[in-house]
Amino acid sequence: MPPPSEFTLIYRYFSALGRGDAVDLSVGDDCAILRLEEGERLATSVDTMVVGVHFPEDSFPEDVAFRAVSAAASDLAAMGARPLGMTVALTLPEVDEFWLQTFSQGLAAAVSEYQLPLVGGDTTRGPLTITVQVMGALPMDRALLRAGARVGDNVYVSGTLGDAAGGLAFLQEQWQPEPDAAEYLLERFNRPRARIALGRELLGRATAAIDISDGLLADAGHIAAASGVKIRIEPALLPLSAELSSYNTQKFQDTHDSSPKFQDTHHSSDQVIQWALTGGDDYELCFCLPVGKEPPEDCTLIGRVEAGQGVDCGLDIDIKAGYQHF
Amino acid sequence: MPPPSEFTLIYRYFSALGRGDAVDLSVGDDCAILRLEEGERLATSVDTMVVGVHFPEDSFPEDVAFRAVSAAASDLAAMGARPLGMTVALTLPEVDEFWLQTFSQGLAAAVSEYQLPLVGGDTTRGPLTITVQVMGALPMDRALLRAGARVGDNVYVSGTLGDAAGGLAFLQEQWQPEPDAAEYLLERFNRPRARIALGRELLGRATAAIDISDGLLADAGHIAAASGVKIRIEPALLPLSAELSSYNTQKFQDTHDSSPKFQDTHHSSDQVIQWALTGGDDYELCFCLPVGKEPPEDCTLIGRVEAGQGVDCGLDIDIKAGYQHF
Repeated sequence: MPPPSEFTLIYRYFSALGRGDAVDLSVGDDCAILRLEEGERLATSVDTMVVGVHFPEDSFPEDVAFRAVSAAASDLAAMGARPLGMTVALTLPEVDEFWLQTFSQGLAAAVSEYQLPLVGGDTTRGPLTITVQVMGALPMDRALLRAGARVGDNVYVSGTLGDAAGGLAFLQEQWQPEPDAAEYLLERFNRPRARIALGRELLGRATAAIDISDGLLADAGHIAAASGVKIRIEPALLPLSAELSSYNTQKFQDTHDSSPKFQDTHHSSDQVIQWALTGGDDYELCFCLPVGKEPPEDCTLIGRVEAGQGVDCGLDIDIKAGYQHF
Repeated sequence: MPPPSEFTLIYRYFSALGRGDAVDLSVGDDCAILRLEEGERLATSVDTMVVGVHFPEDSFPEDVAFRAVSAAASDLAAMGARPLGMTVALTLPEVDEFWLQTFSQGLAAAVSEYQLPLVGGDTTRGPLTITVQVMGALPMDRALLRAGARVGDNVYVSGTLGDAAGGLAFLQEQWQPEPDAAEYLLERFNRPRARIALGRELLGRATAAIDISDGLLADAGHIAAASGVKIRIEPALLPLSAELSSYNTQKFQDTHDSSPKFQDTHHSSDQVIQWALTGGDDYELCFCLPVGKEPPEDCTLIGRVEAGQGVDCGLDIDIKAGYQHF
């Protein structure tokens, strides 16, 4: 008998994560087999994270795993899909048993959080890269698309915006929040929660939706382009956490670091608003509802759909100031 | 308007590849949407290829694309699944328009070969890595599994074995076939054909099946382990192409390169048999049929299922001598 191969090692850590209601066959054969219910169709999306590009080199393996799955699961949320399962293709520079063990703990947390069993994968040697493909189910006649926003619709976002960007800025030592705020913002960056339940609630109600992975302006821009409309966003309405807003206090203690980026602003908290508008990786949902429809809990009106094109927030701001993938 | 981003560039090349009968929604939203027929379930598999590990650094982008898709599609073949669609996650060191253009030509060839539309993807910056996830459809009540081989079954393979390994050895300048043979063997390495039609023909007929990606001994070993049987293979029965067999002539012209690897052999063509037994990447199918069942065309009887465990080919050979992933 040869010593346990890397595959055996990985299989040992991951194989317990493959059980689920929709799973007919999990890891271990040439394909996994998943069952959809009658009248359903498949929604699927793939997301790659590369070390040093999408997460810092020294991230905890648990967080890397959880965040990579959340990013992919967030696309299911944005379509209103019911999670069925996922595969993870992992490229690793070397086999480090401790790393694999903690990585698998993060995967396990994500499997449980999203009810998204791990049904297949591939492991190759190379620079650390994680590709997660998620599969979900949608009714035959419905989906939350980017296209569909209509002039007059209200525009909402879930949760608060900019927290992940503020957390990353802290990681990069650009500021020093109070301990409680630091903990919250790091959690928002490292452990974003895909809004699966909200997406399913919006299915059939919202006229358009997207998840915020590249920043509100960029992602709202995708809705505008797909729907053939303009989206007007009111910066004053953006939902901000107290923890992120604490940046303002901190900022004025360190005046030489102040770098106003807006040509026209009616906010004192330039940086915070910039994070909220362009910071990626919050994985909240941005969506449109016809006037008169009540938004779900924990969602905030931030603007309106108008005739035209593009996104207008009344500020001259670089849409790519946020975290740009590739 | 900003200049076309990398995404725009990629989208331009790939977006035409996303159409297909089962595709309700292709590239361009948060998820793709695929339709299964009534009474079908989803078969899915993911496969990563890393430059320098799974293909030589100087491979043509067209071949890289075709080969990566074939490797993944081969898992659908091994399950007997009907292709529905695929996603491609591409990690690229830089955006080179010529590279992308030729890569997309290879993808287009594979999309057409396997009727496997490209419905989604992700592009990130980093060392060249291609992750292909394939999705296919299976009837609710059937699948070609690794488990299911029964004592007494005959064991078959499709096509010829070892050609890809012989082609790779030529690429690595380990030998110099005649021009026609070289062209054939390179084609077998660079453009392997997943056996989709054969897999679907075997569905409901074969008791077990697998595709040969890691080498016959290793892959037959997976059938043996999953089925709880021993697989006996007769090296003398292995189907060899004339092009691969031409190695024997060539070998004796260069005697100092002879390196017998077998302790016990009744073949003069040690290297050729070793390629056929352990060379990966042929993507032929190995399958078991009950005695009396006729094999499909172009398939060769190579052994039998016995009581016991493991694979026995009567030779003392390193099962990992072939191309080992990771």
